[in-house]
Amino acid sequence: MDVAANALLAAGASPAMVHSLREVPEFTPRCDAVCVNVGTLSEGWLPSMRAAASAGRPWVLDPVAAGASEFRMEACLSLLALRPAVVRGNASEILALASRSLAAAASGADSTHDSGDALQDAKALARSTGAVIAVSGAVDYVTDGERVVGVSNGVAMMQKITATGCAATALIAAFLAVVEEPSDVMAVAACALAVFGLAGEIGMESGAKGPASLRMHLIDALYCLDEQTVTSRVKISLHS
Amino acid sequence: MDVAANALLAAGASPAMVHSLREVPEFTPRCDAVCVNVGTLSEGWLPSMRAAASAGRPWVLDPVAAGASEFRMEACLSLLALRPAVVRGNASEILALASRSLAAAASGADSTHDSGDALQDAKALARSTGAVIAVSGAVDYVTDGERVVGVSNGVAMMQKITATGCAATALIAAFLAVVEEPSDVMAVAACALAVFGLAGEIGMESGAKGPASLRMHLIDALYCLDEQTVTSRVKISLHS
Amino acid sequence: MDVAANALLAAGASPAMVHSLREVPEFTPRCDAVCVNVGTLSEGWLPSMRAAASAGRPWVLDPVAAGASEFRMEACLSLLALRPAVVRGNASEILALASRSLAAAASGADSTHDSGDALQDAKALARSTGAVIAVSGAVDYVTDGERVVGVSNGVAMMQKITATGCAATALIAAFLAVVEEPSDVMAVAACALAVFGLAGEIGMESGAKGPASLRMHLIDALYCLDEQTVTSRVKISLHS
Repeated sequence: MDVAANALLAAGASPAMVHSLREVPEFTPRCDAVCVNVGTLSEGWLPSMRAAASAGRPWVLDPVAAGASEFRMEACLSLLALRPAVVRGNASEILALASRSLAAAASGADSTHDSGDALQDAKALARSTGAVIAVSGAVDYVTDGERVVGVSNGVAMMQKITATGCAATALIAAFLAVVEEPSDVMAVAACALAVFGLAGEIGMESGAKGPASLRMHLIDALYCLDEQTVTSRVKISLHS
Repeated sequence: MDVAANALLAAGASPAMVHSLREVPEFTPRCDAVCVNVGTLSEGWLPSMRAAASAGRPWVLDPVAAGASEFRMEACLSLLALRPAVVRGNASEILALASRSLAAAASGADSTHDSGDALQDAKALARSTGAVIAVSGAVDYVTDGERVVGVSNGVAMMQKITATGCAATALIAAFLAVVEEPSDVMAVAACALAVFGLAGEIGMESGAKGPASLRMHLIDALYCLDEQTVTSRVKISLHS
Repeated sequence: MDVAANALLAAGASPAMVHSLREVPEFTPRCDAVCVNVGTLSEGWLPSMRAAASAGRPWVLDPVAAGASEFRMEACLSLLALRPAVVRGNASEILALASRSLAAAASGADSTHDSGDALQDAKALARSTGAVIAVSGAVDYVTDGERVVGVSNGVAMMQKITATGCAATALIAAFLAVVEEPSDVMAVAACALAVFGLAGEIGMESGAKGPASLRMHLIDALYCLDEQTVTSRVKISLHS
């Protein structure tokens, strides 16, 4: 939560982290967008996650380590049925969700597959759920089931910072909060991932010497980004 | 908890984060002061918060997002009845508490009001509860219901770091731990906020390029502060 | 969890933080090693901790503030009975566990004793439990009940960063994950503490100005460590 909240604040959003079923149904409808992250999943939080997902706001699902256990898989599938606008995960998580199988993600939160390996499954998952699916990796792929967009921003060291994926998902939610056209969801998700990756690139150029200084410089970079830097450096392309 | 604990350690305090009702009643009486923060409120933690507040130690309340839900408001009001020495919040939180109304803080943890907007409500709340009320903002106001002190230290970018308000409240508790005269509570709260704000100023001067580097430099500055720097740079004045 | 996870990632491990009893029994057997940390103890998490400790994997116990309450002491003793490979704590925590008494650690998570003060108790605890006991301090002592090894790496300021002890324990678990001989456990624990302390030394040399910049530089240093630096700078010696 810490790095996601700081990334959101740096990017200009106003995050609130709410867990109790006593306030999720009342608070969530006032939010512009919602991020549901199953990272530190517990039985107590799952009803709150379902309530947040059902509150009528555009929402994004981060199926952290979806295939790590039956409970986690069931939780992710039950959330998926509540029609997220976007699902962002790494290749192992998307493969696990698409196949509804634990085999693909036996080793926890870190992916053991390249994003490209999950592309066909991501398209199938997008078609079956109606969600835009984003697969993070060296290249991030974003698909609505038909079209595929590739995002080439980012640096490999970002994977050595815990919860960068979670922060990227949260940023997609922040971008969703300001989208006007539902048809833009795929573009919104791609732009959020590109901006997050670009912040990582600038963080690296700012003198990061390891993952901890990269984390700091990345969030500073999110805060300092201007339109010209974004438009000149974002690398989004249609995937043939 | 992370940034609050690190701020406390840097300032020379010895923080412990305890939640279970199985140990709060036993552990809390040995603490010099207590900070109760409703940030990530859950039903399970509320009885522990009440027990900590009732343990007979001086304590400080941080009514995070008090007006975000009925449950949160009720929780804050029930804690307020347990006589905190100090309540620190932003203007929206203090306005919500004073009016016992959700209208003032509909947007979550970030304030939508200036601290000055909440000054009269803060005085009324101080009189009705017996607590010193601190309202954070561009100028922090601290009042016992009669007198008002203004604290002008700090930098705007601190609002872009998650949980800086929580860390400021925790620092008030640390300062309370060493106060000898109960009548000093207002001075203690003002000094803690001034020192925290000053650490932010020094953090900014240390080359912060965004909220993440500011967070680092702020905590380093808390650790490095000496008496001369504090006495020469603290900006506390009686508010007419 | 944040600093421990980042330290593990920087050191090349693949951490997952799992709490729910619904997935601990299923997930833990696939882990190479387990770290059980009672820091923010709650009744709900204790059965999960016991399940993780019973999953048949080598595991390390961090008895945070063991003597802070009866509940915490009972929890630690019940975990100790599940045969951890290593227990790492500060002197107050090890003294409390060895004496099964709250007197030694009345002040919370920060030690009020030197590591040398706990050496005889650590040896006795190692003999009675079969675990390797590591006592952190200016010198870290590691003992199997007969032999004692001293580790002299580290800098004092590391104690001003919250959860550095927890991160050190997590690193012991990561090192355990790659040990081949059970008889190496004592060497593994000593090496992990030496490497963690060395990262702190390099972090300090990298220009740390306080605990927050030290935390960043320490994790960066863990990421950048090479074999030559480790072998030339690690300070491990047999304690006579």
